[in-house]
Amino acid sequence: MTAMNAAIIAVGSEMLGTQRVDTNSLSIAAALEKYAVALDRKSVIGDRQSDLVAELRFAARSAGLLIVTGGLGPTEDDMTREALAEAFGLKLEVDRSIIEHLEERFASRGMKMPKVNERQANVFAGQTMLPNRRGTAPGFHLQLVLEEAENPGQSALSSAAAAASAADGRAEKHVFVFPGVPHEMEGMVREYLEPWLAEVSRLSRYRRVLKIAGLGESAVEEKLAPYYVAHKEPLTILASQGQIELHLQADGEEVAARAEIARRELELAEIFGDRLFGFDDDTLEAVIGKMLIERSATVSTAESCTGGLLASRITDIAGSSAYFLGGAVCYTADSKMFLAGVDPQLIQEHGEVSEEVARDLAKGIRRRFKTTYGVGITGIAGPGGGSEAKPVGTVHIAVADSRTIEHRKLFWPMGRIRFKWFSTQSALDLLRLFMLKAGRVTGSERNPP
Amino acid sequence: MTAMNAAIIAVGSEMLGTQRVDTNSLSIAAALEKYAVALDRKSVIGDRQSDLVAELRFAARSAGLLIVTGGLGPTEDDMTREALAEAFGLKLEVDRSIIEHLEERFASRGMKMPKVNERQANVFAGQTMLPNRRGTAPGFHLQLVLEEAENPGQSALSSAAAAASAADGRAEKHVFVFPGVPHEMEGMVREYLEPWLAEVSRLSRYRRVLKIAGLGESAVEEKLAPYYVAHKEPLTILASQGQIELHLQADGEEVAARAEIARRELELAEIFGDRLFGFDDDTLEAVIGKMLIERSATVSTAESCTGGLLASRITDIAGSSAYFLGGAVCYTADSKMFLAGVDPQLIQEHGEVSEEVARDLAKGIRRRFKTTYGVGITGIAGPGGGSEAKPVGTVHIAVADSRTIEHRKLFWPMGRIRFKWFSTQSALDLLRLFMLKAGRVTGSERNPP
Repeated sequence: MTAMNAAIIAVGSEMLGTQRVDTNSLSIAAALEKYAVALDRKSVIGDRQSDLVAELRFAARSAGLLIVTGGLGPTEDDMTREALAEAFGLKLEVDRSIIEHLEERFASRGMKMPKVNERQANVFAGQTMLPNRRGTAPGFHLQLVLEEAENPGQSALSSAAAAASAADGRAEKHVFVFPGVPHEMEGMVREYLEPWLAEVSRLSRYRRVLKIAGLGESAVEEKLAPYYVAHKEPLTILASQGQIELHLQADGEEVAARAEIARRELELAEIFGDRLFGFDDDTLEAVIGKMLIERSATVSTAESCTGGLLASRITDIAGSSAYFLGGAVCYTADSKMFLAGVDPQLIQEHGEVSEEVARDLAKGIRRRFKTTYGVGITGIAGPGGGSEAKPVGTVHIAVADSRTIEHRKLFWPMGRIRFKWFSTQSALDLLRLFMLKAGRVTGSERNPP
Repeated sequence: MTAMNAAIIAVGSEMLGTQRVDTNSLSIAAALEKYAVALDRKSVIGDRQSDLVAELRFAARSAGLLIVTGGLGPTEDDMTREALAEAFGLKLEVDRSIIEHLEERFASRGMKMPKVNERQANVFAGQTMLPNRRGTAPGFHLQLVLEEAENPGQSALSSAAAAASAADGRAEKHVFVFPGVPHEMEGMVREYLEPWLAEVSRLSRYRRVLKIAGLGESAVEEKLAPYYVAHKEPLTILASQGQIELHLQADGEEVAARAEIARRELELAEIFGDRLFGFDDDTLEAVIGKMLIERSATVSTAESCTGGLLASRITDIAGSSAYFLGGAVCYTADSKMFLAGVDPQLIQEHGEVSEEVARDLAKGIRRRFKTTYGVGITGIAGPGGGSEAKPVGTVHIAVADSRTIEHRKLFWPMGRIRFKWFSTQSALDLLRLFMLKAGRVTGSERNPP
C-alpha cells in the first residue's frame, strides 16, 4: 500500500454547541501518527443526514482512509449507517443474528427489545464487523473502490478481485466507523485500527517527549541554538502549563529509528542537564513520587497561597500514601503557627509572605510530620492583597530536610488559578532538585537571580 | 436577511496533531447561538493551500456565513488569504498604507521590517478591514455573491448593487476571517462578529443554565417526567463532572424571551428545590463562597482521601481568604489526631475510614481554626487500600457547626482522580445544604438511602 492520508469525521450536534469539542480525534491522531499516516483534515457534522452525506463524499475525494465516529446508536438521530449508504451507493441489509443477539440481551434482563433497536442490525454486505467490548453499538470497517474519485456517489464494495485491480486508476478507500463514546472508541482504536495500520503502513513513526521544568520557552530556545546549527532535524517545542516539552520523532525501521531518537535524546539531555525532569507521560508529581520511593523518603507540605493544590497534585498519584504523610493549608497567620509551627516573631518581622516564613513553614511541617522533607509555600495569589514591595504574583518556596533548607523566590503574575498551578510546579521542581543534589548545594546557590 | 447558517474553518497543522484541538470554535459557537444562527459544521485544515481551497469551496456551498480562523501571519505557512483568492477567484492587492504602518512599527523599535511581513499588506478590494487590538494580524470581512452555488470558483465581490440583487437566485455569502490566537480571536468576535450578527439576524436567542448537585442523570430525568408531559419545549440535560446542567433557551424579542425563560426556570426550581445550586457560570465553590460571605461565616477543612483538593477548590475563588481560614491534609492516622484533633479511640474502634472519624475530623478542625463550619472527609481513593467491608470508592463526609453535625456516606468507585473530584463535589454540596438548613435537619435525615 502506498502512503495513505486520512480524514476524521465526528458526528453529533452536541459537538457543535458552546460546551463540547471533539476530543476523540486526539487518540485517533495518535494512532495515525504512530504509523506515519498523515491526517489532512477533521470535521464535526451535526445530526442531519444530508450534511453527513455531503461531508463523506467530500472527504473521500482526497483521503484514502476515513475514520467516522458517532451516530451508531438506535435512535432517530443516529444516521451514520444511512448516510454512508446514500453517500457511496451501498445497500444496507438486516443481519438477523444481530437482532437475535440484541433480543437475547434484552430478554436476559427481563425486557423486550424496543423496535427501534432493530436499526443496529443494519449492516453492509462485505463489511468487517468490529465488536464493541465496552458498549452495545458495534463498529465496522468498509473497503470501497470508488469508480471515479470526483464522483464518489458511484462506488462498489470491493471484493478481493476489485481491490487487486484498484491500482489501475480507481481509488481504493478504507472507512472505519466507531461509536462516539470516548471510552468505547479508544478501546476500538487500539483493538482494530492500530493493528490494521501496522499491517498496511510501510512506515512506522517513533516518538519521544522530553520534559523540562524551571526554564521558560525563550530560555529553552536559546539553549537549543547550537543544537539547531549542528542539526537540521525537526524538533517541536511545546510550552504547556509551566513546563516545556521537546518532541522528537523518527520514521522507519524500529531499531534504527529508536537508535536515532536515543542519540538525539542524549545530546539534548546534555544540554538541559537537571532541567530535564522526565519523558513522555511523566508529570512532576509522578517523578517526585518515584524519587521518594527510591530513597525510602517521605514528604509533608505547608501551603498558604496554593491552598492545598500542592498536596492535591502529590496525592493524584496512585500509591502516594507510601511517601506523602500529609500537609497543612494555612490561610491565616495563626494557622501558620498552630498547624505548621512557624515562629510568630518571623511573621511579625518579615510578614506572612517572606523568605523567612517559607523556610519556617518547610522546617515546621517537616518536624510536625517527622518526614524526610518538608515543603513550604507562601505568596500572593491575588487579585487582592498585593503591595508595591510584594506585588500580586510573588511567591516564596522552600524545601527542608534535617540539615539543609533551600529557598526560591518566584514571580507569577498571571491570574489566581494559573498562579496556583505555576507555584506548585515550582515547588515540585525545587523538591526534585533538592533530592537530586541533597546536601551538595547551599541555600544561596539555589536562589533565583 | 433570511435565516442564516454558518460553518467554521480553523486553519493550522498544530490542531491536527495529538495534543491540541480547536477551541476557538466554542466562543464563535456561543456568539452564533446568541443570535440563533445555526452552526452546521466545523473543520480543521492543515497548512496546505490546496486543502484549504477545497474546504472553502465546499463549505461555501451550503453555509451563508463562513468563519475562518488562523493562517494570517507573515510566514510561508500562513496562506489563508491566498487560499481565499484562489477558492473564490478574488484578486489580492497591496495596501501601501499597511506596509507603511508596519514599517513604522518596526522602525519605532529600531528594527527593519522583514520582507516577509509585506504579505500582511495583501488585501481584497472591497473587504472590510477588522483591526486587531491585541496583536499584529488584522482580520477582515468579505461579502461575496457566488454566481452559482454549486461552482463557487466563479464569484464576485459584491457591491451594494450586487448585494441588493442577490435575492434573484444568486447566493450571497459572508466570510469573516480572524487570527487564530485565541485571545486575539475572542476580542474580535466580540468587537466585530457579534455586532454584525445583532444587525443582520432577526432572531436573538436567550439562554439560562440551571445547575443541580446531589442527583444523578437518571434521577434528574425521572423528576423531569411530569414536566416533559406538560411541556413540549426543548430542554437539554448535560451531565458534567458530578453535577447536572439544564439548558433553557428561548428565541425572539428580548422581554418576551426572558419572561418565557423565567417562567420555565420557576417551574424547574420548584421541581428540584434545594438540589438546584446555581445558574450559568456558577460553581459549587463559588456558591458556598457567596453563602459564607452573606452569613459572615468561616470554614476550615480536614481531608484525608481528597488530599487537599477540597481546600484547593475553595481557594480557587478570588476573595476566599475572607471565609476560608485553612485546612489539614491528614494522610496518616497520626496526623488525623495531631492536626485535626481526632480521638485516637475512634480510629482504633472504627478505623480511619468511618462515619465516626469523618465527624470527628469536622468537629476537630472547626475547633482548631475556630471557624463557623468544619468539613471532614475520609475515604478510599484506591487503587489499593480497599476491603470487602470498605471497598475502594467508599467516602465519609461530615459538616459541623457549634451545635450540629451532618454526615453522608457515598460510594464513588471511579478511578482516583474522578473519585477525588466527586468526593469534593459531595462535600461542597453537603456544606451548602447544611448552611441552607442550618439547625433544621438531623444527622440521620441527611444520610443517603
